[in-house]
Amino acid sequence: MVERKPVLKQQPARILDVAALAGVSVGTASKALNDTGQLSPATRERVRRAADQLGFTPDTRGRALQSGRTFTVALLTTDSSGRFSNPIMRGVEDVLSAGELATILCDTRDDPLREQHYLRSLAARRVDGIVVTGRRTEPRTPIDVSLPVVYALAASTDRADTSVIVDEQQGAASVVEHLRGLGRTRIAHVTGPDNHRSAAERASGVVDHAGTIFAGEVLFGDWSEQWGRQATDLLLRRHPELDAITCGSDQIARGACDRLRELGRAVPEDIAVTGYDNWPVMALASRPPLTSVDLQLEELGRHSAQLLLEAIAGTRRHGILELPTRLVPRESTLGL
Amino acid sequence: MVERKPVLKQQPARILDVAALAGVSVGTASKALNDTGQLSPATRERVRRAADQLGFTPDTRGRALQSGRTFTVALLTTDSSGRFSNPIMRGVEDVLSAGELATILCDTRDDPLREQHYLRSLAARRVDGIVVTGRRTEPRTPIDVSLPVVYALAASTDRADTSVIVDEQQGAASVVEHLRGLGRTRIAHVTGPDNHRSAAERASGVVDHAGTIFAGEVLFGDWSEQWGRQATDLLLRRHPELDAITCGSDQIARGACDRLRELGRAVPEDIAVTGYDNWPVMALASRPPLTSVDLQLEELGRHSAQLLLEAIAGTRRHGILELPTRLVPRESTLGL
Repeated sequence: MVERKPVLKQQPARILDVAALAGVSVGTASKALNDTGQLSPATRERVRRAADQLGFTPDTRGRALQSGRTFTVALLTTDSSGRFSNPIMRGVEDVLSAGELATILCDTRDDPLREQHYLRSLAARRVDGIVVTGRRTEPRTPIDVSLPVVYALAASTDRADTSVIVDEQQGAASVVEHLRGLGRTRIAHVTGPDNHRSAAERASGVVDHAGTIFAGEVLFGDWSEQWGRQATDLLLRRHPELDAITCGSDQIARGACDRLRELGRAVPEDIAVTGYDNWPVMALASRPPLTSVDLQLEELGRHSAQLLLEAIAGTRRHGILELPTRLVPRESTLGL
Repeated sequence: MVERKPVLKQQPARILDVAALAGVSVGTASKALNDTGQLSPATRERVRRAADQLGFTPDTRGRALQSGRTFTVALLTTDSSGRFSNPIMRGVEDVLSAGELATILCDTRDDPLREQHYLRSLAARRVDGIVVTGRRTEPRTPIDVSLPVVYALAASTDRADTSVIVDEQQGAASVVEHLRGLGRTRIAHVTGPDNHRSAAERASGVVDHAGTIFAGEVLFGDWSEQWGRQATDLLLRRHPELDAITCGSDQIARGACDRLRELGRAVPEDIAVTGYDNWPVMALASRPPLTSVDLQLEELGRHSAQLLLEAIAGTRRHGILELPTRLVPRESTLGL
């Protein structure tokens, strides 16, 4: 390890001090602390104890300049406060920090100028790689950098890039199979705007997998409880024989449950309801609590970070990896 | 600016290339790009255009080693997915990135061992400072580092530290004054667990400011809609004369509104209801939408980052700074 003397106001303990206390050479101390070279476990342990005693922290900037890496990765997100980008961020940070990498947070706020500013700044800092994530699942234009990049949640439009997304078809199928297993045979679907990829994919997934037991229609609207209530009125008027309403989000499903209760229809005895996203604050507060599809976004973040580490190490995977969702059954289909 | 030749696979444009294209010396190019020295605006502009044209990005690691700063700040949070820490994070990142600092995200997940791991790693990276934030408002033990630190949301127990928190007394007072202005004279309060600082402070704030118009009682419970519904039943039984229920969270207030509607009591005509936190997904989905107290957490994050920048520059402010909240009036007190 190359030792540089940083220009700092507080001078922390130096490796020289550690070596002196452990009674070894500076070279040996460095090898012990970096887990390199041929040393006895006892010597390594003695050096480590000396380092702990002195509160010695190696200056990783030396390691960075020597290796050509900065052990720093950026997380470029369009919205760090987003309900979807947030658990992904958490998963990414978890994997990277375990690997001793620092995660730099860059929130572009959906602003292309801010994105450009960040990319310049990250290039100047020589980060080792970038995870790009966003609030929606629409494929996005790739960023223009010559660094390892992984796209999480929203795939890159360039198939040569590495993307990790949610398998919405499988998520929709799991809902249908669950209802089929419970003997439901007349299913409808209510979801968000038809120009949102997640709404369109979930809807087509439900219709395709349900086949002849899809008895109602697909109603596109917005991602709100209010729309869930309105759509329920519409569906009951047009398809009074329904025995299940699948929804494209937990908010819509919660609205559907509220409206059914107000109309005196029992959930799930008369009509089963399913949500999507498994957002605890909605799924659990709903009356009854919602059977829902968990997107496993933290896992998606972890997977993306893992692929980025592999790309940084030289092994790049091309194309789109779709990760499975997990069905969480609750009272809105199972009853009490 | 010191130019170092980093060990990189892709060699980006060098300052040599920029100087050649602009027809100036390397020293002049460096001064132009670093905004130092005595140069004509025309020369600076020419160099900048050459840098843009070549896609030149200065290696900030050289600047870092020369200045003794890394232009890197850490955000240490107990929970990056938290509804409260999240907007703070966003505010912090916003201010720092505008100042060309990178924000390293460190999510300790409420685990003291993880916190220690991060603090060692941050010391090794020589970050310039740390913002510490959390999910709750209880004062916390300060972290043990010899760096500028600002505590956001949860104050440090050491009064010599710099902390930025929400002024809960002022928030509670704003709710009471709003209701007083609307002519309400018989107020009660429902909130979360009595061992949560935010619940206790909001409750005492309401009681103190209401004085004689506090006619009901304070009911402590949990932060749920279900508790809001139960507490409403209790209050109406014990204090049938109430004309306002103030709540310690939007979830509780939403539960109160639902229960009042189910009992055939009009909100706000019979009983006004107020929330707290101004969490859009609750405050807006409630029937009717909730008058609530916005904690202005993004602003709190921005303020904390600003104080950290000042501390890094050498001006440290000691003690606890309380920031005001903002009352957001909606139908649950105003009616349609």
